Amino acid sequence: MKQKKFRKLHGVFVVEGTKSVEEFIDSDYEVLSLFITPDATTKMSKIPRKIEFFEITDDELKKISNLTTPQGVLAVVKIPMEDEKDLSFVRETTSDMGFTLVLDDVQDPGNLGTIIRTADWFGFSTLICSVGSVDAYNPKAVQASMGSLARVRVLYTDLTDLFASSPLPVFGAVLDGQSIYEIDFGKQGFVLLGNEGQGISPEIQSFIHHPVTIPRRGAAESLNVAISAALFCSELYRRSPS
Amino acid sequence: MKQKKFRKLHGVFVVEGTKSVEEFIDSDYEVLSLFITPDATTKMSKIPRKIEFFEITDDELKKISNLTTPQGVLAVVKIPMEDEKDLSFVRETTSDMGFTLVLDDVQDPGNLGTIIRTADWFGFSTLICSVGSVDAYNPKAVQASMGSLARVRVLYTDLTDLFASSPLPVFGAVLDGQSIYEIDFGKQGFVLLGNEGQGISPEIQSFIHHPVTIPRRGAAESLNVAISAALFCSELYRRSPS
Repeated sequence: MKQKKFRKLHGVFVVEGTKSVEEFIDSDYEVLSLFITPDATTKMSKIPRKIEFFEITDDELKKISNLTTPQGVLAVVKIPMEDEKDLSFVRETTSDMGFTLVLDDVQDPGNLGTIIRTADWFGFSTLICSVGSVDAYNPKAVQASMGSLARVRVLYTDLTDLFASSPLPVFGAVLDGQSIYEIDFGKQGFVLLGNEGQGISPEIQSFIHHPVTIPRRGAAESLNVAISAALFCSELYRRSPS
Repeated sequence: MKQKKFRKLHGVFVVEGTKSVEEFIDSDYEVLSLFITPDATTKMSKIPRKIEFFEITDDELKKISNLTTPQGVLAVVKIPMEDEKDLSFVRETTSDMGFTLVLDDVQDPGNLGTIIRTADWFGFSTLICSVGSVDAYNPKAVQASMGSLARVRVLYTDLTDLFASSPLPVFGAVLDGQSIYEIDFGKQGFVLLGNEGQGISPEIQSFIHHPVTIPRRGAAESLNVAISAALFCSELYRRSPS
């Protein structure tokens, strides 16, 4: 289940750790089965009866876990069907303070998971990824999201289609734009961030209405994409915290 | 050289990739030797003569590299001697916009490297870590710093001694403090961030003069420590960008 191909074929992914598993049980996701050690069973506040349940030993868990230090419980969770309606909703109105984060080919699962966790903290309930982006159900992405994937919808779509069909302004994170602290974000729009090495791809750059830059005082050549995403979330929150 | 024990014994650490290696060559660090493939040799803008130089094959590099995809060059760099003067300087005046980041037992090398990279971006030239924090010369930390370790000094010290002997105010990142967007940071001080799971340890918490919180709108339980550090760097920069 570490393989994307396997996940797509069977339509399931894996969540580990009591806290994260509980967040998925409490969410709209369908938890199919639990593999759990006796010790972890006592730590779970509730296990709904409809969930298939297998008590296993620490050694057995170690064999199926993606973690070097397994955390007592592993859940098999159903990948939700992508709903075309979701995207048309995002295209026209956007949710949460009027802004939606869009990632163009982010490749590192740890970065994607951290962005999901940060989006959840600041109240962004939807995240849009280009089809070439890393899979949000990758075990490392799920782990880095720390349970937040249970609450943040991650939609994959062709960004050209998305931007061409939406009237909303696109704010793009680039190196030579207006300062993030000074730009007028208005009431709604997309905040677009690019790939770790290449940034925003040239064909997508042409959709940017407002190039935005995180000002630099030192000498680092760039910022990590999860850091940039967080600075945008924070700045949008700071401008309209209610 | 993947082992901390080995690094301490021999006083050296490893840097990989042409860009990062060039940044260490340009820095105050002493680069002792280079292991480089013919292809990467052409990509290096300069290799000073005093550096020991070994041309190796891709296969040989693969054997000594810490990376799954080696990047053509591996440098062995001397770990600088810790200078007691450095710390007394930090204790009394602090550098860079008057603020210094302090990490209490951060454990993940990727987080530490990302914090070093972000500090460098925003112009913070010194970072202080508790003695229990992860080693900044850990290969994963060096990698995540993307060359910024060549410019940001990382000092390890007992935080109790540091705070007890400094007149500067301590701003601590906690869950129930004043909003980071509203607090008066004044002109100088320490910004203290805690461990990934436990936060700031109880004995260090007692040194906090100003508890500070990154406001939350959603449901995530916490933020990644590198994300929190970045939001502090950004907010301090925003208040006094010159």
